[in-house]
Amino acid sequence: MPSSCDLLLHAACVVTQNTERATIENGTLAIDKGVIVALGPRPDIAPLWQGARELDLGNMLVLPGLVNAHTHAAMTFLRGLADDLPLMDWLAEHIFPVEQHLTPEIVEWSSLLGYAEMLRTGATACMDMYIIEEAVFRAADTAGLRCCGGEAVFAFPSASGPTPEHALELTRELAQRYRGHPRISVAVNPHSVYTTTPEILGRCRDLAEECGLPLHIHLAETASETAQCLARRGKRPLPYCRDLGLLTPNTTLAHAVDLTDEELDILAESGATPVHNPSSNMKLASGVARIPEMLRRNIPVGLGTDGAASNNRLNMFTEMGRAALLHKLSGNDPTTLPAALVLDMATLGGAAALHRPGLGSLTVGGPADLTALDLSAPNLQPLYAPVSHLVYAATGMEVGLTMVEGEILYHDGVFTRFDYSALCAAMRDVRDWVRRKAERG
Amino acid sequence: MPSSCDLLLHAACVVTQNTERATIENGTLAIDKGVIVALGPRPDIAPLWQGARELDLGNMLVLPGLVNAHTHAAMTFLRGLADDLPLMDWLAEHIFPVEQHLTPEIVEWSSLLGYAEMLRTGATACMDMYIIEEAVFRAADTAGLRCCGGEAVFAFPSASGPTPEHALELTRELAQRYRGHPRISVAVNPHSVYTTTPEILGRCRDLAEECGLPLHIHLAETASETAQCLARRGKRPLPYCRDLGLLTPNTTLAHAVDLTDEELDILAESGATPVHNPSSNMKLASGVARIPEMLRRNIPVGLGTDGAASNNRLNMFTEMGRAALLHKLSGNDPTTLPAALVLDMATLGGAAALHRPGLGSLTVGGPADLTALDLSAPNLQPLYAPVSHLVYAATGMEVGLTMVEGEILYHDGVFTRFDYSALCAAMRDVRDWVRRKAERG
Repeated sequence: MPSSCDLLLHAACVVTQNTERATIENGTLAIDKGVIVALGPRPDIAPLWQGARELDLGNMLVLPGLVNAHTHAAMTFLRGLADDLPLMDWLAEHIFPVEQHLTPEIVEWSSLLGYAEMLRTGATACMDMYIIEEAVFRAADTAGLRCCGGEAVFAFPSASGPTPEHALELTRELAQRYRGHPRISVAVNPHSVYTTTPEILGRCRDLAEECGLPLHIHLAETASETAQCLARRGKRPLPYCRDLGLLTPNTTLAHAVDLTDEELDILAESGATPVHNPSSNMKLASGVARIPEMLRRNIPVGLGTDGAASNNRLNMFTEMGRAALLHKLSGNDPTTLPAALVLDMATLGGAAALHRPGLGSLTVGGPADLTALDLSAPNLQPLYAPVSHLVYAATGMEVGLTMVEGEILYHDGVFTRFDYSALCAAMRDVRDWVRRKAERG
Repeated sequence: MPSSCDLLLHAACVVTQNTERATIENGTLAIDKGVIVALGPRPDIAPLWQGARELDLGNMLVLPGLVNAHTHAAMTFLRGLADDLPLMDWLAEHIFPVEQHLTPEIVEWSSLLGYAEMLRTGATACMDMYIIEEAVFRAADTAGLRCCGGEAVFAFPSASGPTPEHALELTRELAQRYRGHPRISVAVNPHSVYTTTPEILGRCRDLAEECGLPLHIHLAETASETAQCLARRGKRPLPYCRDLGLLTPNTTLAHAVDLTDEELDILAESGATPVHNPSSNMKLASGVARIPEMLRRNIPVGLGTDGAASNNRLNMFTEMGRAALLHKLSGNDPTTLPAALVLDMATLGGAAALHRPGLGSLTVGGPADLTALDLSAPNLQPLYAPVSHLVYAATGMEVGLTMVEGEILYHDGVFTRFDYSALCAAMRDVRDWVRRKAERG
């Protein structure tokens, strides 16, 4: 007699990202209470399980939900407002003048739009950093995807509050409020070395240690960050952070572009996880992160979209394709970063960056966080190698279903947890607000 | 009393790419006999025209159909068969062994798949080169998009025939057969300098001159092509072609990566049009074409996907995004190749590369070749600058309608001219055939 489960899910192909990187043709997943309880070829699994619901996805490919390991979901409100500008002009003339007026409502709607795009394109989890993060968390809770986030800590005032102490206090409150939440967790988020002081970074480190929280920081994004850090602090960014005790296995380093050989060794020893943001690094001309060298040192590497102001998508398929191509060109070697390594970054590497090792693969006992792509799209035919298609051929818009903890959050054009047309209407209002603020300067 | 026309088309936004690069909010196009007869704000146009059919696209953005200025549509049959390999291993062990057995039927189905992907992602015209091109043209005629193509000419035998003379004879026949065809035209296609001889190139030049056909060649794709050309012919590829009389205003140069300053000047003087293929150049580690320097010399530049074996998409939105980002990174300047210049390459530059100056813009008297994107996709919100979204935010899968000569070829998931499910079934057979050939080596 078959065992019962909440959902029996069938699909033409299942890319598991398990230890053997097994791909199953004509596969079935049995899901119960948010967990995968069985997984294998349909003829083996289907007779053994009775689902309260049964969903045959037909000619779709199921894969683990992608992990967007560095983003600022709320920044969708700035998407396409100002491109093709030097970084400092862009920040000073276009981004900061608007951001200083931000309200929780705008942050919440804009984050919800960001999460809608992520679910629409197969991401089920993200590492987020922004201001007024409590509003970001409300949006994540509405959308239903997993989010590890926290209030960005700056040496100067933000729309969240006047001081870094205030941002740390907000972080502490968020950590208490979301303790035990199944999908939302909190990290300490010093913004960067160039927007903080050694004292602030020390307090961030202490809070992370005290509360057992991850620490998430932008690090070594550009050569000019390095030059400024050398001038002000007498050290390059990575050794500076190491000497302040910030580099631990619980640390996530966004960008990690400008690193020396010796710093790559320091990074490998520290157990910290870097996150690669190829679109942002290209668009802002920040440089090429040394990803192949990191992987050769067995450093786990996450992949992230950064915010919509510097990408302008929050689409992990876009990042996978660009990562694979960028390093072939930059290393002058078409064998660099083969598709399987890139998919690892977007799944298992992201799990490392979020400090949630259960994510990024489909295994019995693991969470039912997954997404499914329609293989009948013209660009996904013919099919020889599923992983190649995920990295090189798919745009992300072939996604027809996204699920977290066994709960369907997006299916065939419908977001199950919120009213998408109300979100669109709210974003038109946000745009009008931004235009007024941008005009006033 | 209003004038009558075949179709009245309304949309939230129309990006015209006309001389003023005007964008019209709440726009209307009146289309008659394949030509745009009126275009402007809806309140101005709609009262003056009575359409036999009226189509309100609602919250969509209409733009000129994109021009894929260098591709090999038939190579979709190789998509994802072998990635992440050195170029010569890839060609010798995976591509050539399969290509030598090609049949017209496989070329036709595979080309139709390529054209389906192009229409699905907003391209309405392409510059194609392959073997058994008569089968490619049959597919183009079925799909309905514009194609300028021709039989690739090699010094060695191909599946098309034993000799370059035979390929030239096929080209001449195609030119006669398709003379006056509204959408299909013929070019002379010497494959490259490294797969031909000076004699063959001379005969290609002569045929192009005699029949008034464009000439389309892969040129200066890699540094190793240059080294080989220097060793064999005593010249770098571009001067070698110039000295053979191949560089005229009727010439299209695919890739054009490895060029010196002096060669950029030669190119500018010649009137030939280079085509940029950023995905292929990155994936195969070919190098970075000097696109910003070309544009500074007022050289028109087209944009192309190359074939699906080295991309692996035939999606012009992918190419636009990657072109914009690649040159910012490579030039170490985030102001390089702003979105408007990239869109110009994908539209007006492509028209130059196809030697069809009427394409690539929406103007009264011009062809009704256009595509429309759904602006309600999460990644296209909010909307400040339409051109930014086209280059940085759109994946191409937001396309809901594609039209050539006023004829709808793709609309809301449906290809109007052919049975897409029969194509999918045929491509499964093609895949099985390829697997058998690839196994036999």
